[in-house]
Amino acid sequence: MDRDKILLTPGPLTTTLRTKLAMLRDWGSWDSDFNAVTAKLRASLLKVVHGDETHVVVPLQGSGTFSVEAAVATVVPRDGHVLVLDNGAYCKRAARLTSLMGRNCTLMPFDEAAQVSPAALEDKLKADASITHVVLIHCETGAGVWNPLEAVAEVCARYDKGLIVDAMSSFGALPIDAREVRFDALIAASGKCLEGVPGMGFVFLRKAILDGRAGNSQSLAMDLHDQYTYMEKTGQWRFTPPTHVVVALAEAVAQFEEEGGQPARLARYTSNYHTLIDGMARLGFMPFLDPSIQAPIIVTFNAPGDARYDFKTFYNAARQRGFILYPGKLTQVETFRVGCIGAIGPNEMEQAVNAVALALEDMGIASGEPAI
Amino acid sequence: MDRDKILLTPGPLTTTLRTKLAMLRDWGSWDSDFNAVTAKLRASLLKVVHGDETHVVVPLQGSGTFSVEAAVATVVPRDGHVLVLDNGAYCKRAARLTSLMGRNCTLMPFDEAAQVSPAALEDKLKADASITHVVLIHCETGAGVWNPLEAVAEVCARYDKGLIVDAMSSFGALPIDAREVRFDALIAASGKCLEGVPGMGFVFLRKAILDGRAGNSQSLAMDLHDQYTYMEKTGQWRFTPPTHVVVALAEAVAQFEEEGGQPARLARYTSNYHTLIDGMARLGFMPFLDPSIQAPIIVTFNAPGDARYDFKTFYNAARQRGFILYPGKLTQVETFRVGCIGAIGPNEMEQAVNAVALALEDMGIASGEPAI
Ligand SMILES: Cc1ncc(COP(=O)(O)O)c(C=O)c1O
Ligand SMILES: Cc1ncc(COP(=O)(O)O)c(C=O)c1O
Repeated sequence: MDRDKILLTPGPLTTTLRTKLAMLRDWGSWDSDFNAVTAKLRASLLKVVHGDETHVVVPLQGSGTFSVEAAVATVVPRDGHVLVLDNGAYCKRAARLTSLMGRNCTLMPFDEAAQVSPAALEDKLKADASITHVVLIHCETGAGVWNPLEAVAEVCARYDKGLIVDAMSSFGALPIDAREVRFDALIAASGKCLEGVPGMGFVFLRKAILDGRAGNSQSLAMDLHDQYTYMEKTGQWRFTPPTHVVVALAEAVAQFEEEGGQPARLARYTSNYHTLIDGMARLGFMPFLDPSIQAPIIVTFNAPGDARYDFKTFYNAARQRGFILYPGKLTQVETFRVGCIGAIGPNEMEQAVNAVALALEDMGIASGEPAI
Repeated sequence: MDRDKILLTPGPLTTTLRTKLAMLRDWGSWDSDFNAVTAKLRASLLKVVHGDETHVVVPLQGSGTFSVEAAVATVVPRDGHVLVLDNGAYCKRAARLTSLMGRNCTLMPFDEAAQVSPAALEDKLKADASITHVVLIHCETGAGVWNPLEAVAEVCARYDKGLIVDAMSSFGALPIDAREVRFDALIAASGKCLEGVPGMGFVFLRKAILDGRAGNSQSLAMDLHDQYTYMEKTGQWRFTPPTHVVVALAEAVAQFEEEGGQPARLARYTSNYHTLIDGMARLGFMPFLDPSIQAPIIVTFNAPGDARYDFKTFYNAARQRGFILYPGKLTQVETFRVGCIGAIGPNEMEQAVNAVALALEDMGIASGEPAI
């Protein structure tokens, strides 16, 4: 009756019972047992991006946005100039928090149905030498675009610009290799593709840029250099950590490693993705994006071109069948989104498609009817 | 064997199994079920301070310090001048984050073994008309001092200064009545006397000061006005909430209400406190503070005046018996702290005293020996 619903949302998402069970204990945040959890977790996270040689990782309390803000506040000098490659809602948010904290910030607009362009970035860097840092959203969760991290990083490295990557919804699923891709900061969070519960983020910082970052942040809470220095010295978090979220993430990462790490996770999500779009195609739903730039993380579908369609009704009808969908985040087109991530497999995706079919039936919309 | 240890620390603390069990489900952060949890929780929190008429409450992701910073960033105008009444470590931290964000800040020093003085505050406000806001730490967790909230608030109201109260370690246990005590902001967190798990804070904001606070914060993450406006409009958190922490807090608050609310919680903690200091006195331990200013939240004890004493050894010996103590936070005197808060009663405190006795034995220190 009151079974847990499957979350087809890009975080919070469905986690395993094993991950949740890890939260049934209370931990002293000063205790050596907890310090060991933090240390092991940090080592595991570094391994995911092959960053042991080049980077450190600093966990931070709060939601993912807090870690994005902290990365900018810590890495970009107060007189820096940030260029945000903008193809969606999370790009705009990164620009907003950058401007708010007083850093000079320029938005470089791209179509939200396209990747950002490394060639256009290069032209821009040629034209404006004042730019010191580039912000890229790896997977733009707004529409679901997989942005070209490697090519953007290559341009940034060539022009010696700092690169800040928001890898919130890609980390752990899409490949990221710090040995080949140069970034100053890369941000992710507990409740995304690592399949932990939400409540903390973490930022990879390039060792070479750490010097001189002390006191750069105007916010104490957002100061990753301070958090890092304290953690290295004491093994502890500066301020009370979300202990239960941390141990849940540690347990989720153990399962991630047992599953086979990033390649295995990408394979499962890719198979979720194919099950989803094949099934949705049978119902007449067209993805908003061209498949060549679609990350297998979250899929935006055009809403049915039927007057009887209404997202709320649709959402509730799918929800009644046990599936939580996600609203669209595009300004021009009526869409909805379906996540492919979390502790779910093709079985759940098949059932989700079935729930969508029944939801359409409820609304009196013939499935198979072509969407606009 | 691997039984959960009792946390005698001022958060994270020992929570009930019922509270932890609430974390065994995953919640969609956009879903109406979760919005209902948030709404009910906010209503319950307002009731604890009788603030329905005068205040709103805004939850925030992150540790308690994040909420302190957010309160200052949101409430104090950019050209404001903050006076921090300083009798301990958390006061100094509040001052540091205030200065860092660029607000003018003055520390008014008091003895860490004494309360702050409302009379001295009045003199200061008379002498320096530029002060716009006063920061008070209600229970200074550093030494455990119960500061005179009512008297400080009375002076602030009379001089028409904004008052920001850090009630992190007192909220839910010590009485706070918004109908009688005027404050612009009051801050607390999930993992303290409400006995939830750590991962979020919340700030009570006086309705009368909300206008004109839009855009005051230079940090997007710390902007409580933005968080508030969005939450009122949508019922949702601006950025991903720590869903499991939120539902655990909701469950903890339900138990708080069932127990009899703040008076009952204060009674239990007071009885924990008496059991602790009576037992510790038998072992020769003297509290650092005069009982008249001691909050029954966390007690600082002078370390034994024995050359064989060493906190780490002592901590480990008590830990082995299942109790997690807390280091002292005073600069001048060698101390340690024992919390009286969490889902524990006098039984656990008796056992804690016994564990301390055995720890002393381990170290070869005769109990009953007078401490310096
Ligand atoms: C790419 C990206 N950036 C940032 C965020 C913000 O994270 P949060 O909601 O945890 O603040 C998200 C959340 O989904 C995201 O997908
Ligand atoms: C009075 C007071 N203020 C602030 C804090 C900081 O809270 P956190 O460690 O959650 O950031 C604490 C924590 O114990 C506290 O007791």
